[in-house]
Order: sequence, then structure tokens, then C-alpha cells
Amino acid sequence: MRTDGRQASEIRPIHIDTEYLIHPEGSVLITVGDTKVICTASIEERVPPFMRGEGKGWITAEYSMLPRATQTRNIRESSKGKVSGRTMEIQRLIGRALRAVVDLEAIGERTVWIDCDVIQADGGTRTASITGAFVAMAHALNKLHKDRKLSKYPVVDFLAATSVGILENKEVVLDLNYIEDSAAQVDMNVVMTGNGEFVELQGTGEESTFSYNELQDLLKIAQSGITELFEAQKSVLGEAVVKKIEEARVKKGAKK
Amino acid sequence: MRTDGRQASEIRPIHIDTEYLIHPEGSVLITVGDTKVICTASIEERVPPFMRGEGKGWITAEYSMLPRATQTRNIRESSKGKVSGRTMEIQRLIGRALRAVVDLEAIGERTVWIDCDVIQADGGTRTASITGAFVAMAHALNKLHKDRKLSKYPVVDFLAATSVGILENKEVVLDLNYIEDSAAQVDMNVVMTGNGEFVELQGTGEESTFSYNELQDLLKIAQSGITELFEAQKSVLGEAVVKKIEEARVKKGAKK
Amino acid sequence: MRTDGRQASEIRPIHIDTEYLIHPEGSVLITVGDTKVICTASIEERVPPFMRGEGKGWITAEYSMLPRATQTRNIRESSKGKVSGRTMEIQRLIGRALRAVVDLEAIGERTVWIDCDVIQADGGTRTASITGAFVAMAHALNKLHKDRKLSKYPVVDFLAATSVGILENKEVVLDLNYIEDSAAQVDMNVVMTGNGEFVELQGTGEESTFSYNELQDLLKIAQSGITELFEAQKSVLGEAVVKKIEEARVKKGAKK
Amino acid sequence: MRTDGRQASEIRPIHIDTEYLIHPEGSVLITVGDTKVICTASIEERVPPFMRGEGKGWITAEYSMLPRATQTRNIRESSKGKVSGRTMEIQRLIGRALRAVVDLEAIGERTVWIDCDVIQADGGTRTASITGAFVAMAHALNKLHKDRKLSKYPVVDFLAATSVGILENKEVVLDLNYIEDSAAQVDMNVVMTGNGEFVELQGTGEESTFSYNELQDLLKIAQSGITELFEAQKSVLGEAVVKKIEEARVKKGAKK
Amino acid sequence: MRTDGRQASEIRPIHIDTEYLIHPEGSVLITVGDTKVICTASIEERVPPFMRGEGKGWITAEYSMLPRATQTRNIRESSKGKVSGRTMEIQRLIGRALRAVVDLEAIGERTVWIDCDVIQADGGTRTASITGAFVAMAHALNKLHKDRKLSKYPVVDFLAATSVGILENKEVVLDLNYIEDSAAQVDMNVVMTGNGEFVELQGTGEESTFSYNELQDLLKIAQSGITELFEAQKSVLGEAVVKKIEEARVKKGAKK
Amino acid sequence: MRTDGRQASEIRPIHIDTEYLIHPEGSVLITVGDTKVICTASIEERVPPFMRGEGKGWITAEYSMLPRATQTRNIRESSKGKVSGRTMEIQRLIGRALRAVVDLEAIGERTVWIDCDVIQADGGTRTASITGAFVAMAHALNKLHKDRKLSKYPVVDFLAATSVGILENKEVVLDLNYIEDSAAQVDMNVVMTGNGEFVELQGTGEESTFSYNELQDLLKIAQSGITELFEAQKSVLGEAVVKKIEEARVKKGAKK
Repeated sequence: MRTDGRQASEIRPIHIDTEYLIHPEGSVLITVGDTKVICTASIEERVPPFMRGEGKGWITAEYSMLPRATQTRNIRESSKGKVSGRTMEIQRLIGRALRAVVDLEAIGERTVWIDCDVIQADGGTRTASITGAFVAMAHALNKLHKDRKLSKYPVVDFLAATSVGILENKEVVLDLNYIEDSAAQVDMNVVMTGNGEFVELQGTGEESTFSYNELQDLLKIAQSGITELFEAQKSVLGEAVVKKIEEARVKKGAKK
Repeated sequence: MRTDGRQASEIRPIHIDTEYLIHPEGSVLITVGDTKVICTASIEERVPPFMRGEGKGWITAEYSMLPRATQTRNIRESSKGKVSGRTMEIQRLIGRALRAVVDLEAIGERTVWIDCDVIQADGGTRTASITGAFVAMAHALNKLHKDRKLSKYPVVDFLAATSVGILENKEVVLDLNYIEDSAAQVDMNVVMTGNGEFVELQGTGEESTFSYNELQDLLKIAQSGITELFEAQKSVLGEAVVKKIEEARVKKGAKK
Repeated sequence: MRTDGRQASEIRPIHIDTEYLIHPEGSVLITVGDTKVICTASIEERVPPFMRGEGKGWITAEYSMLPRATQTRNIRESSKGKVSGRTMEIQRLIGRALRAVVDLEAIGERTVWIDCDVIQADGGTRTASITGAFVAMAHALNKLHKDRKLSKYPVVDFLAATSVGILENKEVVLDLNYIEDSAAQVDMNVVMTGNGEFVELQGTGEESTFSYNELQDLLKIAQSGITELFEAQKSVLGEAVVKKIEEARVKKGAKK
Repeated sequence: MRTDGRQASEIRPIHIDTEYLIHPEGSVLITVGDTKVICTASIEERVPPFMRGEGKGWITAEYSMLPRATQTRNIRESSKGKVSGRTMEIQRLIGRALRAVVDLEAIGERTVWIDCDVIQADGGTRTASITGAFVAMAHALNKLHKDRKLSKYPVVDFLAATSVGILENKEVVLDLNYIEDSAAQVDMNVVMTGNGEFVELQGTGEESTFSYNELQDLLKIAQSGITELFEAQKSVLGEAVVKKIEEARVKKGAKK
Repeated sequence: MRTDGRQASEIRPIHIDTEYLIHPEGSVLITVGDTKVICTASIEERVPPFMRGEGKGWITAEYSMLPRATQTRNIRESSKGKVSGRTMEIQRLIGRALRAVVDLEAIGERTVWIDCDVIQADGGTRTASITGAFVAMAHALNKLHKDRKLSKYPVVDFLAATSVGILENKEVVLDLNYIEDSAAQVDMNVVMTGNGEFVELQGTGEESTFSYNELQDLLKIAQSGITELFEAQKSVLGEAVVKKIEEARVKKGAKK
Repeated sequence: MRTDGRQASEIRPIHIDTEYLIHPEGSVLITVGDTKVICTASIEERVPPFMRGEGKGWITAEYSMLPRATQTRNIRESSKGKVSGRTMEIQRLIGRALRAVVDLEAIGERTVWIDCDVIQADGGTRTASITGAFVAMAHALNKLHKDRKLSKYPVVDFLAATSVGILENKEVVLDLNYIEDSAAQVDMNVVMTGNGEFVELQGTGEESTFSYNELQDLLKIAQSGITELFEAQKSVLGEAVVKKIEEARVKKGAKK
């Protein structure tokens, strides 16, 4: 039994509040256990300089934590005057992951800005960010499509992420909270699409290593967790949007 | 009648959620109309270098906006690598205001870090931050006192803030929302204590000026609004805390 | 009696050297007691990007202190690589104040850069900067007008500033020097126009508060001090310029 | 057949020059195809502040590219005044990977600084850096051990890294050069220890995804490539050092 | 004849105002033609970390220009957030030059901070800074000696600097103003001591070169100019200080 | 006899590896004793903004040291977030020196970026950089000329640099290594052209001075060393290039 009473393969309670803020084109408050992240999607009617004139869009993400999202207060990155390596790694990961399920040509020369602001942290903030950001982005892009600004439906698959790990007692567990994460020997973030493919796999031995067999166990448990996340996303996206994404996925597959 | 249907001297609906986050010693979500700010108070068991050995504490504040708290997305200050003049002005104001109602010797060599993070903005974010931060700070310091770490009760008065202004039609109004604020000729932030004294008065003609008589009207309307804010604060602080603050205020007055 | 022998409502000796430097369009060395500030006004034939095409001008200010303007040496902000919150507050204040007495449309798409460099500091550097900068700016804009580059006279009123405060002994005093300022309970900067209106009012209790009645006393004494500053400005601006400003003020009033 | 004539599972020619520089405790020039990296290991007789007094050491890495290591010149990060997200990701990866094969308690309160400077780039610079840095570090730590400054042999396994990927034509290939890397659908960096365990696994679909079966193919081919890298490392480390590392590995396994 | 009517070997009028500011230990306003620099010397009762415990002092310099010291306004280095290469070169030069005529052991573990702030520029600002800074420093160190804080007289020689150059018409000239400097083919800064030795010689062909013979001409004319600067320094330092410096120079020579 | 057994006027062994890297238009590894610098020349088909439309080119240089080029590890300037004064001085020197032997009009609106990266340092890194950069630049520009992109041959003379100095024992020596440089009383960098003219002369007394006669000795020994450097450059440039440079020099002389 785990510190918070869960089974090894049990994910924490998930809740996704949609239309959480009035200004952004898409916004959610995602709660995974005690981890809470505000994810917003903003549409900008142009792309960064290096992409101009290519007729396709861009998705980029920023990630931050409130100073007191954590047990002890962290110094703001704006006060330090620079963004940490950890933050940069996470925001590159979120952006890359989302781009894998969007038809960038379909959104035209627009940028989708994703902002993930962790207001409370208890492990798994980067994976909760991806899972929540997908919903915010889907709302924002669905709105663009409804407003007849796009000729093709741009979201071509679902996307969710979780973490898995190997604890000090060698147990393979799903969705680590902060205490587990701090002590884990192996930590792996898995990002998957609705059709069961991987987008990102980042496994790290923390002053430790993992075998081929352990890897298989980690992947299996991750897949089961992500399936639950897809259910949570679909229930808040609503049937109409789910159907459109599934149709776009089929069309994309047909073309390949 | 104002754009949102209010009377000239009508404040927007106020709501203060307390114990909003699990980690900080004090935390609230304050809502004033469509403006929403997360205010946290964190206790650090030391003071900044320039105050060491003086036997008294310090209160400092930081202020930030989520990129999409506003109508259009703002670039993060952490990405720009520096904090804007506006942000610095606001965080200096919040810290200074709170220090006026705390007996810094009573808190010993500790720092109270106040973090005000605007998650949704519709005018009056700095005054909402002060009003909310007071409650978060009072909770955190009350806890320290209950834990018998302080010999004296440190909060010696209530503190709240609002904005008043003169619109283009020369009307003097209370608690400006974003649309009103953008077009106002005169904008004034007023911070007051529970016993009716001023802590800060910042009046600015925006490419305009104001007369001595207009100033009197602005102050009168501000006072009425702040009285309502004190009611909202007291109802969430609870009778026991309110009583302790009032006793501390009396004691301080007696000593003078 | 005050530390330097002045009466409570006595301003320090004022001296304004005009055409102090050969390169700027306007330049003064203003001396208020032992406080000395070089103020220059530079005309740039364009406005910042956010204002282009609007057919109006802009006024912006920068403020700095020589490292040894003060009792002990300060580290240069260029060495620290960033501008302090205090500096930003002051330069925003100076720019805002000057914009209140200039018809920005009359100056066309030009920027007036104001630079206030404190070479010796003894309290009141920000208010001396405003008072001196007004003269430097008036000279620079008068020159533009004389050169027939402007169709309307752009300076529509006089502008000066002083500080007032409440000392530890509760005495209300005018034009605080550094020793008084360090110990004052309340510090207030007042910026006024030639027709007796307020442009800025920034009153701050330093770990202290002030009552409505004290505020009235502060304002009264400030007004008397500013009247003396206007005399000093007018004597160096010369009759012709004073007359033009007064005519522009009347015209502007007539239009309202 | 690949652009440079290699088979899908063929690694590029590897060359490791040891004792490449006179000053560092360990230094190599590693060449993998046209990719050339200078890797140095420097011993500092203290640890970073957050680790003081814990009786164990630390390993940290920095990575950089000469401006003209690439086809077109890159701006120096020192000129830009900040380190890019990509660089931070890579230096965190190198440090973490090396720490997995070193007994940090055995090195005492010392820091091993690893510097990887790419003087010529043709894909795979981060994996070449890890492979080369291991040799530089092993030399530096071996020297410390020979000088009788360590009671235990600190290097407890071999470590090497390579990249694998899936090209546009769906072919799974080993050790991608720059042209292949730019066009690959999936890119995976694999870091392994001498006993066949994983330390890091970072697989990324570039606007693409990969299946469970493709993952197995990628891992298989990576393992074969890394085996060749171990041979290259062992031949330059020399029999005596190889033997000591293997003994340390056995001892560590025995203890578990 | 030169643009300002001078002979080739004629220096511009020199004026040195001493005790120019009330706070610094030494301060001058030096005027060389239209170039005006405020030079201050501040004594700090400690040395930088890298020199602690060596029983000797340090002299360091900072240099800056007011934004409107020049024909067109320059952006402040504090606004840019970094100090330019030109500024760094100049401040390193000033510090190094002054250290050559001070017995660093005689001043004990103190730092002399030199600040040179150009308020008006017309060529030769770095050499005017050195010449003025010497006087400010001599005053500050003389005061320390008079206060019996030093056992030995620390200033062991005079120091002054000028610029020489070769104009487009091949004429070798002394003390170039801004117009001459902009067009010169060769520019040379010469720093000399009272006994006729060189401290610094920095000659630069600006997209041009100079011969051995031209070098001799440049040095000769520089020497004559510096002799005049020594006269100006001596007249403001006063006989007593001049005598002490000359005695210290003789003693130092005797010891060699 | 010197610490490394050389005569006072003996230069260290010089070796220049050309075409050292595959990507840059010109690249060398220059070795002077134990000092090793990679110098590259990159051609960019545009000039910096301040030079656009003038029909001439620009040459600019950057200089850096690997962290472990030296006895003890230096912090990277990219980690510090700023470039040191020493680095700025050196890169300005290198750029300025190279511009003196290139006909900037002949290269058209192009920028030559010179990068000098010191991989091993033992004194004289800036002069080795100039000597090596000249060869890399000559190769790059020769290639442009061969490709018929330039109508005139742009390199109009040879360029090399060395250091000379006066040791503590008053001996005048050529090409100081690190140990000598650290203890030298006078240090002088001399940059000369193939026709025996000076481009730069930077002599510095390190808490010391030098006489007119010592200067003559320093210049004489510098000239002899630079002659050897020209021989080394010519032997790797090849007869054809040497001839073209000499012809361009004659033509330029003829025109004057």
C-alpha cells in the first residue's frame, strides 16, 4: 500500500473544470490529487518570425509555478531574471507533445500559446499540464473551427500524459505524488495519443538504472493510467467535440 | 449609470475564499467583480541581511499576473528576464501598506512573504491584492501566535484598499473596472486602516489634473467603499481573530 | 526649529542654472538646498512604436544618481545590470507629471526625453527633478516653436513639485532634507500646476498612518512651497516664455 | 542505404584521443563520424552549498558549441546573455547520466565538473558528449584513486550513449547524422551502463508518434550500437582501469 | 590650422574645480575644452574578496556618460542592462593607470573607488578622466594621511593623460576634439608619470597604420601636452601636497 | 635564461593547422608553445544595421576560452550571463586589427565573423588569436575571390601580433608565457602589418612604468618576432595567396 492508500496501479482522482477564466479562448483548472494547474490556450493571429510565409501554424507552451505552490516558497523566476533549466525542459516538452496531435497546416498562420500555471503542486505537474492543456487547446481550436476560420478540423487525436516510476522497494507504481517522486529510483513520463501510440517517453534512473523488463512493466501501467485520463477529457469535451476529433483521426490515418 | 450598471458609489461584489491552498501558512482567493487574485502569506524564519540582529521582522510582497489574466496575452516577466516598473511599484506598495498594521517587533526575526498572483484582471488588481493579502497575512500571523511563537499579538489594525477616480464625464466613482480605469481622467488608490486613517494615497491625473474639491469627493467615496471591504474581511476572519486585532489596536493606541 | 534652522513651512534656497550644457535642446542645473540635479530635455523626431501613426507626441523620463551623490557610495545600476524599483517609480512619476502640462498633439510625432541626473543628494531629489525638468522641457519646446516646427504652443501650464511630511514629533514640515526624510512618519510628494490643480499626490505612512486633518495640513503647506518654486521657474524662463505658457493655459481652459 | 552509405544498424567510426589537453585532470577529444567534442573533467575540492556536510560528492556538466561547429554560424550564448533551453536540457542529461555510474560517497566532498565543447557538429552531439565525458571522468577519478585520496574505487560501471530514430521512410536506424536527424519522425537518445541497464531513455515523436513495436526495434538497435562504444572506451581506458571498474561493479552488485 | 583654431601641438584650455561635491572624500570637475567630467574618489574600509588578508589596498574605477553628454542622446547602460565594451575598456584603463602611482601597501586594506561621470563630451573623455581622477584621489588619500590613518605617504608620483593622433592630412596633433577624433587615422592615448615614464600607451590605426617615425612624433607631442596638465594639477593640489608627493617619489626611487 | 629555456628574443614554436574544421569558410588551429586557439572565419551575406547601404563590408571578432583552457577552471561567460571586460577588450582588438589589412569596400556588403576559441592557454592568447585569425580570414576571403564574388582582391597586407614585456629582473623579452606574463612589470601587445607598420600598440605598466628607452627595446624585439610569424603564415597560405596579397598591397600603396 502506498503512502496515500492507493494501489500500485491506481491513478489519483482527476477533475477538469472548463471555461475557468473569462478572457482566454480556452481555459481549464485541472486537479490530479492535490496537484492543481490552470491551463489556458490563447490564439495569436501570426506565427513566430522563423515560420512566416510557410502557411502553417505553431503551438508553444510556457510553464510556471506560483512561489507557494510547494511546501516551501520558491523564488520567482521573474525575480531571478532567468528561467531555470527544469522550466525550459517542461515547456519544450508540453509544446512538442501538443504539436503531435494537431494538423499545423489546418490552423493556418496562427500561434496557439499554452500557459500552464501550477497553483498547487504534489508531483506530476508536467503531466497534469499536458493533460489539461490538451483540453484548453481543443476548446480554443474548436471555437476557431466553429467560427469558420479553419477549413479542416485541426485536432487529429487525443493526448494525455502521466508519470510512472519504480520506488525504493522496487515496486512499479502509477502517478507518483511528491513524496514518492522524491524517493523514486526511476521516474518516467509517458505521453500518449488516443490511438495508443507514444509521443514522448522520458525515463530517468535517479542515481539508479532500470532493466528492459522493468521498462515493459512501466509502460504497461502507464497505458492503463492514460486510458483513465482520456475518459476524463472526453467527458468534459462533450460528445460533439469528441466525435470531430475521432473523425479527424480517421481521415488522417486514411491519408497516410 | 456605469457600464456595468453600478451606481457611482457602489463597490463590486466581494468574495474571499480562505484556506484556498494547502501549503501556505495563509492563503485566499479574493474576487472583486471579475478581478480574481490568489494571495498567500509564507513565514520564513529569518530576515533579509540588512535587518539581521535588530530583533524585528519584515514583510515583503511580490505581485504578478498570469499571462492570460487579461484580454490579450502578456509576455511573462520571467521570459523577458526583468520585472516591469509597474510590477515593482505595486509590490513595493503592497509590502509598505501591510507593514503599517503589523508590530514588526512582535513577529521577531521572521519574514512574511506575501505573494499576490492575479489569475483574472478587470481593474483594481493592486487594491484587491492588498485587501486579500491582509486576510492571508492575518491568518498566517494568527497561527504563529496560536502556536505560542509570539509573545504579543502582531496585527494591530485592519487594512483594506480600493480605487476611486474621475471619469471623462467628470463623475466621481468608486472601484473602477478595467474599461472605466482605461478612460479615467484621474485615478486614485487609497489604503486605509480600520480606525479610519490613511496609509497610502496615490492620486494621479492621467494627462489631466484635479482640484482640491474633487480630492475631497474622491476621499469621501473611497472611505465608504473601504468600510464595506472591512465587513467582508471580518466575516471571513471570524470573531476570535477580529477581537484580537481590535484589542491589539487599543493597546497600541494606549501606548502612544 | 529644524535641524538646518528652517521654519516648518520654509523651503530651502532654490537656484536654477539654465543652458547648463551645450548639446541638449534644454538643460538646467537645479539646486534646492544641497540637492543638485542636472535635467536635460532632448527632442527625438519620432515616437515609440506603440504610438506611431497617432499624430501625437510622447514625453518620457529617466532618473539616475551618480554613485557618490550620497553620503556613502551606491553601486551603479548599470553595474548591477538592472534598474531598481525606486528608480522606476521615480522616472514613471516624472514622465507622467510632465505629460499633464503639455499638449501632446501640438508637439507632433516627437519624443521629449527627459534625463534627471542627481549629482548631489540631500532629500527631495524626485521633486527637484520635476521642477528642474519642467524648465529644461519648456526651453526645448519653446525652441521648437520658435523654429516654426509646431503650429500651436505646446506647454499649457507651469509644473512644480515639492515634498511635505510629518516628523516624529508630529510637526508638519515643508521640503524635507535627507535627515528629516529618513525619520519622517509620513512622506508626501505633491505635484501641482500653475493654476493650482493637483497632478500627483503620493502620501505614504512609513510604518505609520495619517488622519484626514493631517492631510489637509500637508496639502496647505505644499501649496505654499510650490508657489515659491513657480516664482523661481518664471524668473529663469523669462517674460516672453511665461506669457506664451499663460496664453496657452487660457486657450486650453476656454476650449474645455 | 543511408545518405552516408551506412547500413541501418551501423554506427559511425569512433575515435577517442585521451590526455588531449595539458591542464584538466581528464580530457578527451571524441570523434563520432564528423561530430567532434572536447570533453574535460575537472576536480574541485568542495561541493555546491546545498550538499555541504553530507560527506558525498557531486558531478555536474556544462555543454556548449563553438559558434561555427555547425553549417551556419550560431550566436554565442555568452553574447545572448543566456543559456538556451536546449543547452540546459543537454547539460542536465549529461550530469545525471554520469552520476548513475559513480559512487558519490566514494569521491568525498568533491565536485567533478564536466565540460563538453562541441567543436564540430554532425548530429549526436549530446550522446557523443556522454560517451567521451565518461572517459575523461574515469581518468580524473582514477588519478584521484591512484593518489590515494579515495578509499574506495568510485567508478562502478561503464556508461555510453547513442541515438536511434525512425526516418521518414519508416526505417529504424542507429546513430543519426545531422541530415537524418533533421528529417527523422522519431528521435531517441539511449544511455546505458556496462551491465546492460538503462540510465536514460528519451524518445520523441517529431510531429509524429511511435508504436510499442517500433519502440522495441529502437531499443534493440541502440543496445548493439552502445556495445561498440563500450569497446572503444575500454581500448583507450586500458586494462588496469577496466579491471578496476569491473571489480567495483561486482562489489556494488554484491552489496545490494 | 585646426577646426577650433589651435596649433597642432596646442592643448585645449584646462580647468580643475576641486571639492566640487560635499559627500565624496575627493571630488573635482575637470574641464578640457568642452569636455567636462565629474571625478570622485571614495574610500571604502575594505578590499574586494580576492585581496583580503594581503595587507594591501586596491584602486578601481567606473566611468559613465550622461545620456546627453553627446551631440545625440545615448541610451543609458542601466536601461540596456549591460555595460558596453568601450566603457569596460575605459574603466579598466583608469584603474590600472592610477594604481601605478600609488603605494598599495601604504593605503592598507582599503579600496579607493574612482567614479568618472562625463557630463559633457567633446573628445578625450578618458584622458580627462585620468587627469581629473588623479587630483580627486590625491585629495582623498591626502586626507587619510592627515587623519593619521596611514603611516606612509601613499601617492608616489603625479599622473596625467592626453590623446594624440594623426589626422587625415597626415598632421600629427595633440589633444583631439570630437570632430578630429572621428576622422583621425591614428589615435593614441598616453598616460605618463611626473618623472617622465610611461604607464600606458595605446595606439590604434583606425583602418590605417602608423610607422616607427610617426610613433616618435606622437610621443614627443604627447609629452609636451602632459607637462601642461601636470602644471594644472599642481596648481590646484597646492604646494604642501605637491611637496609630499615629490618626497614620496624620491623615497620610492631611493629604495629601488 | 627563461623558465622554459628560451633566449630573451626567442619566440615559442609556432604551428598553424589549416582547414581544421569542415563547416567554416576558413579555419585554423594555431599553436604557439602550449597556447592553442581555434580560429574560424564565417562569411555572412549582410552587414550590421548601422552599415547598411554604404556598399562596404565589416569584420567583427569574438573571443572565448574553454573553461578548462587554464590551470584552474573558469566559469563560462554564458553561465555568468555576461561577457567580461577582458573578453570585450580582446574581441574589439582582434576585429580592429583585421580591419586594418582588408579593403572593406572590396568585400561588398558582407560581414566576416571571426571566432577565436582558446582551447589551451599559456600566455599570448590574444596575439595568437590575431595571427591565426588572419590566416582563417585570408582563406575565407580568397575563396570568395576565387568564386568571382569580388571584383578586387580584398586582403591588402599581412597581419600578425606578438607580446613583449619587461620581467621583474628588468630583462626585455619576446612572447611571454603565462608564468612570465603573471610576473611581468610591463606587458606590451604589438600588431604589425607585412610592410612593417604598426596597427596596434598597447603597452601597460603593471603597477610599474617604463621609459622611452625601454619602449624602443620592446619595439625592436617585437618586430623580430613578428617577422617569424609572417614566415609561418606565408608557408601555410601558399605561394599563390601570398602573391595576391603582395600585389594588393602594392596597388593600395600606388593609389595613396
